[in-house]
Amino acid sequence: MPKLYSVSVKREEIRLRTVAIGICGLGTVGSGTVNVLQRNCAEINSRAGCSIEIRQIGARRDNSDCELGSIAVTRDIFDVVENPEIDIVVELIGGTTTALDLVKKAISNGKHVITANKALIAEYGNEIFAEAEKSGVSVCYEAAVAGGIPIIKSIREGLSANRINWLAGIINGTGNFILTEMRDKGRDFADVLAEAQALGYAEADPTFDVEGIDAAHKLVILASVAFAIPLQFDKVYTEGITEISQQDVEYAEELGYRIKHLGIARRCEKGIELRVHPTLIPEKRLIANVNGVKNAVLVDADAVGPTLYYGAGAGAEPTASAVIADIVDVARNISVGQIHTVPALGFSSDFLSEVPIVAIEDIKTSYYLRMSAEDKPGVLSAVASIFSKAGISVEALIQKAPEAGEVTVPLIILTNMATEHKLMAAVSEIEQLPTINDSITKIRVETLDG
Amino acid sequence: MPKLYSVSVKREEIRLRTVAIGICGLGTVGSGTVNVLQRNCAEINSRAGCSIEIRQIGARRDNSDCELGSIAVTRDIFDVVENPEIDIVVELIGGTTTALDLVKKAISNGKHVITANKALIAEYGNEIFAEAEKSGVSVCYEAAVAGGIPIIKSIREGLSANRINWLAGIINGTGNFILTEMRDKGRDFADVLAEAQALGYAEADPTFDVEGIDAAHKLVILASVAFAIPLQFDKVYTEGITEISQQDVEYAEELGYRIKHLGIARRCEKGIELRVHPTLIPEKRLIANVNGVKNAVLVDADAVGPTLYYGAGAGAEPTASAVIADIVDVARNISVGQIHTVPALGFSSDFLSEVPIVAIEDIKTSYYLRMSAEDKPGVLSAVASIFSKAGISVEALIQKAPEAGEVTVPLIILTNMATEHKLMAAVSEIEQLPTINDSITKIRVETLDG
Repeated sequence: MPKLYSVSVKREEIRLRTVAIGICGLGTVGSGTVNVLQRNCAEINSRAGCSIEIRQIGARRDNSDCELGSIAVTRDIFDVVENPEIDIVVELIGGTTTALDLVKKAISNGKHVITANKALIAEYGNEIFAEAEKSGVSVCYEAAVAGGIPIIKSIREGLSANRINWLAGIINGTGNFILTEMRDKGRDFADVLAEAQALGYAEADPTFDVEGIDAAHKLVILASVAFAIPLQFDKVYTEGITEISQQDVEYAEELGYRIKHLGIARRCEKGIELRVHPTLIPEKRLIANVNGVKNAVLVDADAVGPTLYYGAGAGAEPTASAVIADIVDVARNISVGQIHTVPALGFSSDFLSEVPIVAIEDIKTSYYLRMSAEDKPGVLSAVASIFSKAGISVEALIQKAPEAGEVTVPLIILTNMATEHKLMAAVSEIEQLPTINDSITKIRVETLDG
Repeated sequence: MPKLYSVSVKREEIRLRTVAIGICGLGTVGSGTVNVLQRNCAEINSRAGCSIEIRQIGARRDNSDCELGSIAVTRDIFDVVENPEIDIVVELIGGTTTALDLVKKAISNGKHVITANKALIAEYGNEIFAEAEKSGVSVCYEAAVAGGIPIIKSIREGLSANRINWLAGIINGTGNFILTEMRDKGRDFADVLAEAQALGYAEADPTFDVEGIDAAHKLVILASVAFAIPLQFDKVYTEGITEISQQDVEYAEELGYRIKHLGIARRCEKGIELRVHPTLIPEKRLIANVNGVKNAVLVDADAVGPTLYYGAGAGAEPTASAVIADIVDVARNISVGQIHTVPALGFSSDFLSEVPIVAIEDIKTSYYLRMSAEDKPGVLSAVASIFSKAGISVEALIQKAPEAGEVTVPLIILTNMATEHKLMAAVSEIEQLPTINDSITKIRVETLDG
């Protein structure tokens, strides 16, 4: 049998080669990328085995956060993808309109593409990867998920021996900052959100962060890499953190839990669960102790068991760190005339399977329920009887004495695992009891034990 | 300028290729590797883009933990490295004598080598990597550090944009299990060690684990990958956990710290620090909450900031997970006639530099000190005066009332940062005070803030 490794390249030759990159977009991440590439060029080039050179930057305006020196700058980003000298196009303009055109054009021009654009990959990744495969170029997107944490590489390459069971991630720093402040300082959601906006953590329109859309983009990407399924952004169940109250944070604490906004992807009997929602998790779990703007992803896999990856999920240089890691991966190979052999989603494209995404009504989970009950005999028994008829057992219960002058008492229930539609039917029934006021607050609970 | 990516391979071709591996050693990790490769072969082959086949196993005896089916088995492991059909040799026999011969022979026969052998890499890695470079083959060793956590890949590839500042790891599961039990259950070292041995976590001779030698092997490897320095096992400062008492665990707790056995590698003005020792770390740090047999490595790097990697540091399948990830990395490339372009230590070998390893006397750190002081006036003042003369300030102090019938009181001091030799001189002086009995317990303190 012939030996398979026939290519042999001398190091001296490698050191002389140059890989030319073109950066499109010079905002926060763009300028961070320029700065890190310049500051650490000796280390980076030694790791890449070649000289990585920023040949051109396309940006509508300069950015005083970085020094461009003699780098050519064009105001038309499409110049970059048309530049025959450029090997790798780095897309950092964001959005899904111009960015999509740019990436497609780059691919059809035979350029490799590195992007930090989660929306683009989550919504148009299938189409982009198919075109890249046809053109024989790589599209890398480590920076699109969890900023500087090498989570795509870890799942796709580091855990390549495994069948992934599930993953759960704190993948939106703004949301985690808000929940952390609510818990640590007893502050209210709206108050912390205003501060996060002032600090620049949250956008003026915070919808993407607090409603879970940003997390859903990232979750979809993680799930495809973990489970070999096409990207299906339209199928993620998404619930934000806007309804989380200080009370819930406190009761969760009393029960030994923390509330985190998680993206969860799980392989179950019926297919794959894809869901973003606030979640009570046991305070003893490492991920329950990930605070502030930090991100973390917990992955449970059959051979390795649970592993966790933690770090900065956003910011100029953390994101640049991921962008440059992708550049190095591609440059290491193309500088010696090789292809970067890691498939975009980690699996060969003909292996990707159309496993169904499970509807939220059909998932099984435990629930934290908070209701306002009239302080009368028989209320608890009426509630318990509804759960009992539905076959849902109660794991824990807190009933508080009424505050002075109040006629209602808070009643907090942790249920055991139940199918969502069954639980929702029971909750509706309870809400109709004359002794239960207002609607019931419902937060899912996950034990996350691997 | 010519385009650099000239190789183009059709996927259909890739799928048909077979990469033949030979496994030497069929102990815990060997049988785990066989089991995971067989169970997950569809996923693994799809990720690798080729068919990974166990062509031969060399083992002195069978192992009933795995089914070998029709795989050829030889009792002479050297048959495997001589087998012309085999592309990748997986060394899982352990030790540094036969394993070294085997690996060198494999390399000189043009085989790629995957190993889980930390002692072999830490002590003979420089020589092994040099020979591999000459022969144009890869030597991969992800499984040698922190079991199933993809920490080598994360530092070497995931953080390739960064200049690493320092790393600190819980990289010995047995030691962490002992310290966790001491804290959680108030048990004594010897008692927990005996249980760890009974559970199979600790070897009959626990020296490697509890004296820090195993952690030192792993630390040396991490440091080389992080700082581009040759492997220097003989230069690691190593201190075990055998002297940690229940009292220290409790006082640490009272001060807001946990005691962990850490491997620390840090870039400082004078060079690189390489040290393994028990360490007080603030209980709020995520790594302080890594318990039981789990491992975790915290890496602080200039662009990304702190990142943490957590998971199983040992065991059959977690270790197999790392072994197979390496196999996939190499197979992905050699199956299409390419080389695996990631250098063994992540940097091209001519970039490796002989940065000095700092002597332990010259490092700067804070200290936890516990002494037994006579319950007399003036003792505290005498101690404080010695520190003051040495220019060492005291960060925190606990003085307990004497127990009934005792004439001495425990005096616990947390110092600020000081150079080790200065601190040791002050401690010696304090030990000579007539009012201080016995020797002083000294444990280093690290804040680990990134």
